[in-house]
Amino acid sequence: MSKANLFYAQSGGVTAVINASACGVIETARKHKDKIGKVYAGLNGIVGALNEDLIDTNKESAKVVAALRSTPAGAFGSCRYKLKSYAENKREYERLMDVFVAHNIRYFLYNGGGDSQDTANKISQLSLEKGYPITCIGIPKTVDNDLPITDNCPGFGSVAKYVAVSIREAGLDVASMCSSSTKVFVMEVMGRHAGWIAGAAGLATEQEGDAPHIILFPEIAFNKEKFLRKVKTCVVKYGYCAIVVSEGAQNKDGSFLADAGGKDAFGHVQLGGVAPFVATMIKQELGYKYHWAVADYLQRSARHIASATDVEQAYAVGEAAVEFALAGKNAVMPVIIRGKGKKYRWRIGEARLADVANVEKMMPRNYISRDGFHITDAARDYFSPLIQGEDYPDYKNGLPQYARLKKQLEKKKLKKWIPS
Amino acid sequence: MSKANLFYAQSGGVTAVINASACGVIETARKHKDKIGKVYAGLNGIVGALNEDLIDTNKESAKVVAALRSTPAGAFGSCRYKLKSYAENKREYERLMDVFVAHNIRYFLYNGGGDSQDTANKISQLSLEKGYPITCIGIPKTVDNDLPITDNCPGFGSVAKYVAVSIREAGLDVASMCSSSTKVFVMEVMGRHAGWIAGAAGLATEQEGDAPHIILFPEIAFNKEKFLRKVKTCVVKYGYCAIVVSEGAQNKDGSFLADAGGKDAFGHVQLGGVAPFVATMIKQELGYKYHWAVADYLQRSARHIASATDVEQAYAVGEAAVEFALAGKNAVMPVIIRGKGKKYRWRIGEARLADVANVEKMMPRNYISRDGFHITDAARDYFSPLIQGEDYPDYKNGLPQYARLKKQLEKKKLKKWIPS
Repeated sequence: MSKANLFYAQSGGVTAVINASACGVIETARKHKDKIGKVYAGLNGIVGALNEDLIDTNKESAKVVAALRSTPAGAFGSCRYKLKSYAENKREYERLMDVFVAHNIRYFLYNGGGDSQDTANKISQLSLEKGYPITCIGIPKTVDNDLPITDNCPGFGSVAKYVAVSIREAGLDVASMCSSSTKVFVMEVMGRHAGWIAGAAGLATEQEGDAPHIILFPEIAFNKEKFLRKVKTCVVKYGYCAIVVSEGAQNKDGSFLADAGGKDAFGHVQLGGVAPFVATMIKQELGYKYHWAVADYLQRSARHIASATDVEQAYAVGEAAVEFALAGKNAVMPVIIRGKGKKYRWRIGEARLADVANVEKMMPRNYISRDGFHITDAARDYFSPLIQGEDYPDYKNGLPQYARLKKQLEKKKLKKWIPS
Repeated sequence: MSKANLFYAQSGGVTAVINASACGVIETARKHKDKIGKVYAGLNGIVGALNEDLIDTNKESAKVVAALRSTPAGAFGSCRYKLKSYAENKREYERLMDVFVAHNIRYFLYNGGGDSQDTANKISQLSLEKGYPITCIGIPKTVDNDLPITDNCPGFGSVAKYVAVSIREAGLDVASMCSSSTKVFVMEVMGRHAGWIAGAAGLATEQEGDAPHIILFPEIAFNKEKFLRKVKTCVVKYGYCAIVVSEGAQNKDGSFLADAGGKDAFGHVQLGGVAPFVATMIKQELGYKYHWAVADYLQRSARHIASATDVEQAYAVGEAAVEFALAGKNAVMPVIIRGKGKKYRWRIGEARLADVANVEKMMPRNYISRDGFHITDAARDYFSPLIQGEDYPDYKNGLPQYARLKKQLEKKKLKKWIPS
């Protein structure tokens, strides 16, 4: 194959390390200038391809590209945009092909979760049918850690580290004050479908009595009586109770905890999330003074406390994606394979996009303790290596310095895209 | 004066660096074993003195004491407990004197905010009247940065750094996604009476368009129309709007913003804080998709991202307090004095407790921009040096290792204290 261009796009919710994958892609592509011409990045993800908004990353200096490794969020812009099936929206796929052909793009690298891998797979198939074969490689990314086959997902280790560090620190705060002030602290973390992030917070408990004392998982139906009993036991025993609650925590009937109490008499949605809901429930039933925190985007953008392991793996999957493409592989995604043995080792493997697309990996039940309120040793063995190591960004004037890109767009060659 | 014991207590809301002050006190006292016998720390602050719960810090190893420098929250326990005036509660003061006499305590070091300095001052006076003179030295501490005379308060620089880093990171997250998802992000920060913390978040804005775009200060009466207009302008201009709101943000009539809309038709207090209140107001009026975060205790316990300047100053005021006591000073507090000139320099000075007690330092109006939504260059000049430098704790297994104390109590000599 003659020299062709590469298109890279970021998709879905961003992470603290998705730009490390971008860095891996661009730096590796630059080492292969004989085979890869320009590396384009989609402005705001795949929507950038539809709009023919192609950022010419060759215009970014080596220094700026290197800085992507320690810059959180999606430097080229991401989007929440799922392509429909080819049957349902043929026009979009045709447009993508038109843009790829117009700009001599033969490599498509898609950095996202399950939906994105599905899209990449479809484009691969379509390109073959159209007689303009495009090498499609997925790059795993999601704080939700729910992609199959890969041992873990880049992005997860850093949010895991953030939540474990945060509940340890806030727990010490509450412990200091509990004799005369706040006795209950509730921290809400992400994870609408699975308790991976909530579970990782459990790493902060190293000795009996350490925060968090209780974790509420989406996997375990909320039992109010049992929960309140446990809260009371903790306060009596340790003087306070630090709780981590997943935003996906559910009632027995599958409804979200916060939704259940989240409407007033007029059906207006109340303001808070599940953390204030749980905190006020405790106040009402047990009378304890409480505080709560909702970390929200802070947790997934916290590059300042990223896991070094996560950063390395994010870079490695970006690098591997380019190498896979150059090796003639297609419709695959680099995955992280954990070695056997006590010492943590990992290497890059590969999975077929068809096997990855639209499959959600749930947290095993044996990661949750029998009483449903904490994690097991099996969970610790899994989580702990993923948060190892610190990879601090550079600071200037007391603040982390994150890459500022030119984001210069390639000249358009096609007509303006009008969405259906 | 013959060799006497020292009593140290932590008071009020804790910070990321109050233990660095404790470290300064203990390490400095240990250098003067000829003059200072035991260093006692009150278990849970001044309440520990009333209960005769005196932690014998001599039982803590040099290594553990050194680790206090990088341990957040109050390692000996703090409390929300303000002694009443002597006239109102003579019994409590008598009890304190009894405990001090019983344990040969001649030095009283009180680490807290304005209330605590008032207490220390009263005890100093009383001890003279009783003919058992106790050297009383205050040690400044408060994330609120509202003590007078001192240029800044230990504890503030680290929370300032945390909020500036956090809004920078979350801002990048929103910027990545705004083309197709969240357009407005609201982060709530502490500061019920003054906008010091909210203002410090403004440091994250280094270039036009950087987050935060809007800061809501307690000092500026909330103007809904003007605010919504500004939000809309930001979304049109930058694609998104990142907002920092102080928990103390107020309406024109002085009521808190969240309180105003924080009750349902039955008068029940709603769940959320001011961040969800502001976010839903924007959704209702402008229709933008939003996210919000409430950092709560996470911000004041975030030792992992502490300001090195703050840590140094916290240690220095602890060290100075012991040196003041040994130099025969009394009823004073070490303060931080900022040098003149462009390059930031600071040194330790002293203030009389009588001048510090119960005086709140408000943020100057000229720190807030004319439109009321951001900070000025004067504010930057003030804030910026306080967040300089990183002082990372040690990590093990991916998590910061914080001091674990024995907290061994001295044998009691008095009858049990029964509070009034």
